[in-house]
Amino acid sequence: MDIAERFETNPIVRPADVPPSGDGMAVECVLNPGAFRWQGRTGLLMRVAERPVQRDGVVIGAERDGSAAGGIRRVEFDASDPRLDTSDPRFIVHGGRTYLSTLSHLRLAWSGDGVCFEPVDEPTLVGSGPLERYGIEDCRVTEIDGTFYLTYTQVSAAGTGVGLAVTRDWRRFDRRGTILPPANKDCAIFDRKIGGEFVCLHRPTGVALGGSHIWLARSKDLIHWGRHECVAQTRPGRWDELRIGAGAAPIRTEHGWLAIYHGADGDQRYGLGAMLLDLDSPARVLARGEEPIMEPVADYEREGFFGNVVFTSGHVVDGDQLTIYYGAADEAICGARLSIRRILQTLGR
Amino acid sequence: MDIAERFETNPIVRPADVPPSGDGMAVECVLNPGAFRWQGRTGLLMRVAERPVQRDGVVIGAERDGSAAGGIRRVEFDASDPRLDTSDPRFIVHGGRTYLSTLSHLRLAWSGDGVCFEPVDEPTLVGSGPLERYGIEDCRVTEIDGTFYLTYTQVSAAGTGVGLAVTRDWRRFDRRGTILPPANKDCAIFDRKIGGEFVCLHRPTGVALGGSHIWLARSKDLIHWGRHECVAQTRPGRWDELRIGAGAAPIRTEHGWLAIYHGADGDQRYGLGAMLLDLDSPARVLARGEEPIMEPVADYEREGFFGNVVFTSGHVVDGDQLTIYYGAADEAICGARLSIRRILQTLGR
Repeated sequence: MDIAERFETNPIVRPADVPPSGDGMAVECVLNPGAFRWQGRTGLLMRVAERPVQRDGVVIGAERDGSAAGGIRRVEFDASDPRLDTSDPRFIVHGGRTYLSTLSHLRLAWSGDGVCFEPVDEPTLVGSGPLERYGIEDCRVTEIDGTFYLTYTQVSAAGTGVGLAVTRDWRRFDRRGTILPPANKDCAIFDRKIGGEFVCLHRPTGVALGGSHIWLARSKDLIHWGRHECVAQTRPGRWDELRIGAGAAPIRTEHGWLAIYHGADGDQRYGLGAMLLDLDSPARVLARGEEPIMEPVADYEREGFFGNVVFTSGHVVDGDQLTIYYGAADEAICGARLSIRRILQTLGR
Repeated sequence: MDIAERFETNPIVRPADVPPSGDGMAVECVLNPGAFRWQGRTGLLMRVAERPVQRDGVVIGAERDGSAAGGIRRVEFDASDPRLDTSDPRFIVHGGRTYLSTLSHLRLAWSGDGVCFEPVDEPTLVGSGPLERYGIEDCRVTEIDGTFYLTYTQVSAAGTGVGLAVTRDWRRFDRRGTILPPANKDCAIFDRKIGGEFVCLHRPTGVALGGSHIWLARSKDLIHWGRHECVAQTRPGRWDELRIGAGAAPIRTEHGWLAIYHGADGDQRYGLGAMLLDLDSPARVLARGEEPIMEPVADYEREGFFGNVVFTSGHVVDGDQLTIYYGAADEAICGARLSIRRILQTLGR
């Protein structure tokens, strides 16, 4: 089942629309934006994935390094080196060490109508410090009382965790460090306190025991988090059997918090699903859809950097209309409109 | 190098010394205690690993379940089932699902001299709630201003995280929930604030990127944690190449915080090492020993439930003397004395 009405102009931001961050870099993918409204416009905080311009016979990766020219250090491998494994397009594995094939930063794009976006020319936020040497990715944006809280994936050889940045004007950003240690990503903060504390959904990954499930945590100050609970798990044999993770901030409805989430099956095919969380006890799942509400069916979702993916980390709500911004095939940004009432119907409400 | 003076009476607590928690259960291992001083005595909060008494042709596991008789639900498998894998003594794997072979609880033992311990007859703390269905393990104890903070591993099918319990009298315990989500363990809280915040070492495990490294976090209330930093990583080709994790609370010295940690090599041989952390910026490693300060060399450390293991989560300090309580071969509890001055010498101090 797919109840999404895709934009006719999809993809709305493509790699070619985004200038690279510097000489010698090429934009491979633009994907998985955070979304928000500000001063009458719609903003996307996009993930821009770049890699060094490649040369024949060489595989070139890159990492952030404040001591290197331009802040980026190149890592080169002989393409014929038998210790080199590039079978997964997202990774460069060499002699037991894993690098990313691309280096991501976050960049704003603005729109007056929510459909036609203009990316800014320069990176908005780039990786900083030892825990972001492999870049920053997949930002969620939550507005609370006029302040925007940005939760994004920090990537380094030390692992993949969640960082927090705060802004009020989209010019100055305060970095608040790592709020969730590895292995964690897909952190979405609710847009108001529940029971006197801030709440987020997040996605730790278990080792030996556990999996890639959705958890919830609570905080008094948005920087320190505790009282973790497991909210929802992957479902064996289903479309969300391999891993699940939250989209953007859950949407408050009279029936409960509506959470849009991504799920992947054993073939790494990513779709979007919905679940409903109790208004007062949001770790309690009231309903969860049997089927995805959106699947990779369009050409631009089936073919690309990493095919068969629809993945969201940003949406905006206008009455009954939910506009989901999403990464298609890990390569370009698309949009789709859904009726919140219709989603709730699929959940039996 | 091994600079530990082992107790002549090792092991000081064996499985046979501990009565099982109920009919039909057998104590397989007693290991990895937290250690503390209270009212002139030394206390150990031991991990007691039990399993149901086995029958021929059947492999029987157990999990905590409040709705089952006695609070424990048995899980039985035909020993000849080809989907059953018990090759690792710590796990029962069946059809892609992983159970633990033993179910652990925490139990006190008391001593007047720190050498001869008397275990209490009943469990002190048992797993409670959905995140502790597979038990609770490996407790660290930190005293701050007369209150004892217990950080222990919570185990369930949802993963392995860190729980916090608090006591002032060793009778009543307040559970404060999950302070660090999966995959995490080996959490040791420092015994005083640093820079106005509480601090802990912990051990998340990365997936795809990262490894089993030691991290640090900060907290205002010991329940909510943030500002995570990676302190120390495994060292390829060394005795601590596979995973590392903190022992008990780091020891304040004039040279820095002395942290005892465990490391495992590629053969899962566990030894203990030392590192020195900056007094004011404890995420900064001032020195780290090249070699372990203690290795599994005694018979009772080399042979047992899981051989070639010395693992500590508890110690007490008396002047220059550090008494380390440790699990030997994952089966019994032992003790050893080390000179703090001598450990610091191995770190070049």
